[in-house]
Amino acid sequence: MHEEPRYFESFELGERRTTLSRTITETDFVVHAGHSGDFFPHHMDEEFCKTQPFGKRIAHGTMTFAIGIGLTATIINPHAMTYGYERLRFPNPVFIGNTIHTEIEISRVLDDPKRPAFGQVIESCSVKNQKNETVLFCEHILLVKKQGSH
Amino acid sequence: MHEEPRYFESFELGERRTTLSRTITETDFVVHAGHSGDFFPHHMDEEFCKTQPFGKRIAHGTMTFAIGIGLTATIINPHAMTYGYERLRFPNPVFIGNTIHTEIEISRVLDDPKRPAFGQVIESCSVKNQKNETVLFCEHILLVKKQGSH
Amino acid sequence: MHEEPRYFESFELGERRTTLSRTITETDFVVHAGHSGDFFPHHMDEEFCKTQPFGKRIAHGTMTFAIGIGLTATIINPHAMTYGYERLRFPNPVFIGNTIHTEIEISRVLDDPKRPAFGQVIESCSVKNQKNETVLFCEHILLVKKQGSH
Amino acid sequence: MHEEPRYFESFELGERRTTLSRTITETDFVVHAGHSGDFFPHHMDEEFCKTQPFGKRIAHGTMTFAIGIGLTATIINPHAMTYGYERLRFPNPVFIGNTIHTEIEISRVLDDPKRPAFGQVIESCSVKNQKNETVLFCEHILLVKKQGSH
Amino acid sequence: MHEEPRYFESFELGERRTTLSRTITETDFVVHAGHSGDFFPHHMDEEFCKTQPFGKRIAHGTMTFAIGIGLTATIINPHAMTYGYERLRFPNPVFIGNTIHTEIEISRVLDDPKRPAFGQVIESCSVKNQKNETVLFCEHILLVKKQGSH
Amino acid sequence: MHEEPRYFESFELGERRTTLSRTITETDFVVHAGHSGDFFPHHMDEEFCKTQPFGKRIAHGTMTFAIGIGLTATIINPHAMTYGYERLRFPNPVFIGNTIHTEIEISRVLDDPKRPAFGQVIESCSVKNQKNETVLFCEHILLVKKQGSH
Repeated sequence: MHEEPRYFESFELGERRTTLSRTITETDFVVHAGHSGDFFPHHMDEEFCKTQPFGKRIAHGTMTFAIGIGLTATIINPHAMTYGYERLRFPNPVFIGNTIHTEIEISRVLDDPKRPAFGQVIESCSVKNQKNETVLFCEHILLVKKQGSH
Repeated sequence: MHEEPRYFESFELGERRTTLSRTITETDFVVHAGHSGDFFPHHMDEEFCKTQPFGKRIAHGTMTFAIGIGLTATIINPHAMTYGYERLRFPNPVFIGNTIHTEIEISRVLDDPKRPAFGQVIESCSVKNQKNETVLFCEHILLVKKQGSH
Repeated sequence: MHEEPRYFESFELGERRTTLSRTITETDFVVHAGHSGDFFPHHMDEEFCKTQPFGKRIAHGTMTFAIGIGLTATIINPHAMTYGYERLRFPNPVFIGNTIHTEIEISRVLDDPKRPAFGQVIESCSVKNQKNETVLFCEHILLVKKQGSH
Repeated sequence: MHEEPRYFESFELGERRTTLSRTITETDFVVHAGHSGDFFPHHMDEEFCKTQPFGKRIAHGTMTFAIGIGLTATIINPHAMTYGYERLRFPNPVFIGNTIHTEIEISRVLDDPKRPAFGQVIESCSVKNQKNETVLFCEHILLVKKQGSH
Repeated sequence: MHEEPRYFESFELGERRTTLSRTITETDFVVHAGHSGDFFPHHMDEEFCKTQPFGKRIAHGTMTFAIGIGLTATIINPHAMTYGYERLRFPNPVFIGNTIHTEIEISRVLDDPKRPAFGQVIESCSVKNQKNETVLFCEHILLVKKQGSH
Repeated sequence: MHEEPRYFESFELGERRTTLSRTITETDFVVHAGHSGDFFPHHMDEEFCKTQPFGKRIAHGTMTFAIGIGLTATIINPHAMTYGYERLRFPNPVFIGNTIHTEIEISRVLDDPKRPAFGQVIESCSVKNQKNETVLFCEHILLVKKQGSH
């Protein structure tokens, strides 16, 4: 983790990066339940899950999001801030023992409609498992200062 | 937390519910950093934060999401599943010691374009602090089985 | 979890409820040791446990109590408070991977000998594993306000 | 923590010991909620608690029990096992920042009615705060092997 | 854990003690990563580790140190304090499921060169796994008050 | 965190880097006690600490080490591995609320006496608080592959 200042103008469409990977453990499931307060049996009750389509416990969507986005937190850009997220989807479940990483691609760059000193950089984030299946997709919208703006 | 089966047809536009509240602690900040792997100084470095606009540590957006949505996890509807989230925004920061709850309103109900046996229920979720300021907004899209569908 | 105000008069002998279930994980064992400070080898040392009658690590009794009672914490009755617990017993051990739930039956209702405005409601709590074996039994004594008392 | 084998015959009425002390932190509150799944506002919602008689968050009874008993787990007696607990009471609340320890006194020793090879040793456990107020009382019933029994 | 005051003069060369054992779990790996902020793939990415010489995740050295030394924390000597550690080595890796304990031998006792009221007691600490392989070695240097010094 | 392969020959005496900072919280104290099993009153008992020279709880040395070294874990060099640590010292205590970072300087580079394909790189690590006082010092010995060695 380190600082790397970048202004809006330097972001290019199609730029890509891939994070390190991390194995999702039963511990992560239990920590997330205790952290979020969501003890739904889909995440916490192995016996119930045996009777369900997937046959085993599946990760909280909020955990896949927290860890998937957490994996991308390696470069601090003091000129950028998160504006929001769009199109958050969970195409495949995450099971205990899966190993996930996140692939980021800059899919859009545009002027911010209300803030002339900022542009929007949209990162398409795909969290993928060890079989290269996408388990979470979202668009991360960043507000990034323009170089000429200060 | 209990089970309450509901089919698509029973959801009504404008239906509202409010969750219990929970005080966000320094512990939650530290747990979330360790859980997500995101140790950015905005969340973890009190000295750095003193030099920033907010003057103190601010919560990870992914934590506000995980806890804000976690607060809503009180009723298990076996006929519903999460399809995704839209328009995730963070209008105000969450600080250590803030007390948050979530207000949910059904803002749209529609047929699912691809799955005739399901409808979409859109819950507008507003996570609010003790001053009634919205700290997170999102739309939660649920796929809910239609009663006539089985 | 939601609020549901009930006065003493509304509790009936023989009333029953059953909680959701939760799989007890190795993580719960480790968290409980770290939380309680009890690192006895019966809970923490797999090699030692192989030489003991049960052949594997067994849960702390205090954990079975904390989680077993925690599972019942789904309805907030503002007119009730815990007075204490009696006859706490551990008829069978809890192992890593067991799935437990709690069954509650109102086994006694009586006037409180010292507080005329309150009655006592005794809930017999049986924490059971996936084989329906009781792993913890106790009586939970509640003080509940009488309706005519305010 | 160390092993110290003792048979039933060696326990004497009135024998006392006192544990070390430990400050109960907000972290312990949050960990216990996440561990037990009990997020009742009495423990977790500072704003709600301001409107209640005690004016601040109070510890889960199950946590005071887990930590209070955990503090006593310093001597492993291979000839003893927990049979159960009686008369669990919470005479005073535990607040964040309180420092607690446990005082143990052997209050009864008796033959076990059903197991001739064992005796029962009853430890009266008083968990006390820094003002010497009792915050938890219980009787811990131990089954201890008799020396002549093997 | 208990207090046992000892002055420098009472420590003897060759004195030994052995701690209890503890099984290192996947939970410990995940907790340590989150606590230290070190999410290197050698500890956290099972798929990456399959391609490495050991074939599976290996413990953080800092965790083996923290737990190995933590196991020795059973006797509080108010006359002693840690001065530092020397020759910290990791001769063998620790894997998930290994059970470790620590063996301590007093390997040197000497006057402290700068503090006439204190002596140095050097404990050679060997953390060993269930196969009796040393997984960590270090020398713990203690400053211990001399009896004639107060 | 990212990979950056470097052979022994590229390390230069006097090379420096400084990590990000992190505020040490009460949560870290509690997590470390639970993780290491060390509940000594110097770290956990606020009332006892009021009677001691520092007047408040002080961090476990093993925690300052784990977090101080953890802060340096930002660049993965596949050609390097930890051989050990020397001269671990704790010149000043760490208190709750202190903000620490680590400064690293390459203080020695030498051939490894037994492994011709490797050199030793010694990093002098100084963990410092927000007043620039050193709270931990150690020498981290790395074995690094030589470029000509494969």
